[in-house]
Amino acid sequence: MTLKVIAYARNGFTDKFGIPRQSREESGIETRIVFEPEYSVPEALRGIDGFSHLWLLWGFSKVQGDDVTCAREWSPTVRPPRLGGNKRMGVFATRSPFRPNPIGLTSVRLIGVKANGESGRMELIVSGADLLDGTPIYDIKPYLSFSDSHPDAANGFAEATADYTLEVRMADECGRDVPDKVLHDITEILRQDPRPAYQDDPTREYKMDYAGWRVTFVVEANGKEPNGNYSGTVLVRKIEKI
Amino acid sequence: MTLKVIAYARNGFTDKFGIPRQSREESGIETRIVFEPEYSVPEALRGIDGFSHLWLLWGFSKVQGDDVTCAREWSPTVRPPRLGGNKRMGVFATRSPFRPNPIGLTSVRLIGVKANGESGRMELIVSGADLLDGTPIYDIKPYLSFSDSHPDAANGFAEATADYTLEVRMADECGRDVPDKVLHDITEILRQDPRPAYQDDPTREYKMDYAGWRVTFVVEANGKEPNGNYSGTVLVRKIEKI
Repeated sequence: MTLKVIAYARNGFTDKFGIPRQSREESGIETRIVFEPEYSVPEALRGIDGFSHLWLLWGFSKVQGDDVTCAREWSPTVRPPRLGGNKRMGVFATRSPFRPNPIGLTSVRLIGVKANGESGRMELIVSGADLLDGTPIYDIKPYLSFSDSHPDAANGFAEATADYTLEVRMADECGRDVPDKVLHDITEILRQDPRPAYQDDPTREYKMDYAGWRVTFVVEANGKEPNGNYSGTVLVRKIEKI
Repeated sequence: MTLKVIAYARNGFTDKFGIPRQSREESGIETRIVFEPEYSVPEALRGIDGFSHLWLLWGFSKVQGDDVTCAREWSPTVRPPRLGGNKRMGVFATRSPFRPNPIGLTSVRLIGVKANGESGRMELIVSGADLLDGTPIYDIKPYLSFSDSHPDAANGFAEATADYTLEVRMADECGRDVPDKVLHDITEILRQDPRPAYQDDPTREYKMDYAGWRVTFVVEANGKEPNGNYSGTVLVRKIEKI
């Protein structure tokens, strides 16, 4: 089967660094799903506004940083970031991009449906999408709680790290010129610890680009929790316009 | 993107008639997911047994009865069976097979992982798969409750019909020679009303094939509930070996 791109994701995630490992709709970070001309048909979205959540099927594409679609052979095992990158798991036991068919699956909250004022293209506004800006979308389906929701599902090796967040503090004056919405998004991204797995050097300065702003920060880890997670504080040193 | 088939579903659903419209893991109807030789690698499943639920991404293929993959153009609107087949909804507000990219998405409960005794092929045993026998599988992912489960999601037009089941009664002697497991599955399928949407003729005799058996039944509807569903009784007249 050959997949056609029906839409592209548009958001502030122009940089792979910073993309949440798992989407959290509570973050309130918004993404626009902009339909391609052939699929930009208002009727195709009739009734979708009755659903609070949607599924996106999307491609781990070149924009993801690694050339997933062409370059690599699939590998039976991968090193999940949430296990620190030093333990191997079967690829079908993970959400790794390096799978035989590099399709991603993400549930999002539907915020709105509209035609873009300039282009006239149909758009869905969603929150909770862990997608890079420019990610190709292959399908959009309604979320059906009676078949899709299993709140008590056992999460295997992913269980321990499910609720891991950091505290975020801004240096004086920092973020003063940044629009509220962007500042909110940056704070949410930092709370989820965008560092590569198990890097724990409080002197190391990280840089992350989001929505046209460059964020410089360090992470003061207070130590390892019994579940293997870090607890700690993100100190934002600078936020500059790129 | 071109998708490779990694596995095929194997179960008793050799007939399109009878496939549940939405999968219900409680049904206990089992499906084997049999990996293709290239992907039949035990390491690729390492850690998967820690997850209670999985996602299957699969193809609405020729076996679905309609030649979805080649024949039809996509249509912006479809007539969902649960609305009686007489109201149109946008294709992205439905799980209809007639979508730009005919990929299906189903969550299943993982029952077991094993190598087949005869072929040596790796298999997953799952329950709750609403798939025809022979359906191609393109991806298998772990279900993560903290990102995938939204028990309070609003189900739009699909809400009203979420909990609709019928009572099933067997005629005397009927089902006596049928193996317990097959009889259990047939009962579960009938409970979910396999009739085409809004057919309501108590004199009409239906035939359904499942796992090598042909079931003959009628449905005595007691009337329409306020939510538009039928309530009623399935009377099984005959179950014969095909």
